[in-house]
Amino acid sequence: MKEPKSYCPQNLILEVLGDRWTLLIIRDMMINGKRYFREFMQSDEKIASNILAARLKLLEEEEIIYRQDDPRHKQKVRYSLTQKGIDLFPILMENARWSLKYKPVAAEDADIAKQILDGGTNAIEEIMQSLAREHLPKKN
Amino acid sequence: MKEPKSYCPQNLILEVLGDRWTLLIIRDMMINGKRYFREFMQSDEKIASNILAARLKLLEEEEIIYRQDDPRHKQKVRYSLTQKGIDLFPILMENARWSLKYKPVAAEDADIAKQILDGGTNAIEEIMQSLAREHLPKKN
Repeated sequence: MKEPKSYCPQNLILEVLGDRWTLLIIRDMMINGKRYFREFMQSDEKIASNILAARLKLLEEEEIIYRQDDPRHKQKVRYSLTQKGIDLFPILMENARWSLKYKPVAAEDADIAKQILDGGTNAIEEIMQSLAREHLPKKN
Repeated sequence: MKEPKSYCPQNLILEVLGDRWTLLIIRDMMINGKRYFREFMQSDEKIASNILAARLKLLEEEEIIYRQDDPRHKQKVRYSLTQKGIDLFPILMENARWSLKYKPVAAEDADIAKQILDGGTNAIEEIMQSLAREHLPKKN
């Protein structure tokens, strides 16, 4: 890791996420259940494959995601969120609250976001627990 | 405004903020009380003046900030937050929560952030009201 430009809490997180693509990959994993390189490529924003590869590598180095060989497809790699990654979910929800207020959010996305935001911290906590069950390594 | 790449709430906000510098300028206004071009230049992260000028212009076009001639200094322009800008504060606080958990935040910054986060939504609401008093145009 290189030295951060400052130890301000905003700067520290923005040095990780500070590129629009990074948080869109996190969104794809959290909201759209995407786990594979090819799935991320198919999102509406049309990320370029070299940018996607670089951002996945960065997220892996930051231990926000981890990669595993897919047990069902030998040549495929599956990406999962770590707890550090799952803990980004409240930021996504505050982003959504702002966009709902000020931007022309697609109706379908707006319905999902409103439902979660209306449920408050309990609804957010429940989704984070469900992400933990799906993504974190199973304990024996 | 150009057509957004998608109408997903995450993409819509990231198309505005999707650059580490943009949210650092907002931080400087909210947390550090900075209002002038020269003040933004002096922050620890050492933003380049051409990037700062471009980001301030973008934030103004998005109506997240507005500019006024400083009544005290004729040649100076003072930047203020709009309500749309002030409504970004909860995102900063979720960013801070994540950094406090996972990053080596400077002790002084950590104390301030913890104090606000411990106060919950009331503390956040109070700060937003105080920002509104400072930044929004006075009503007659």
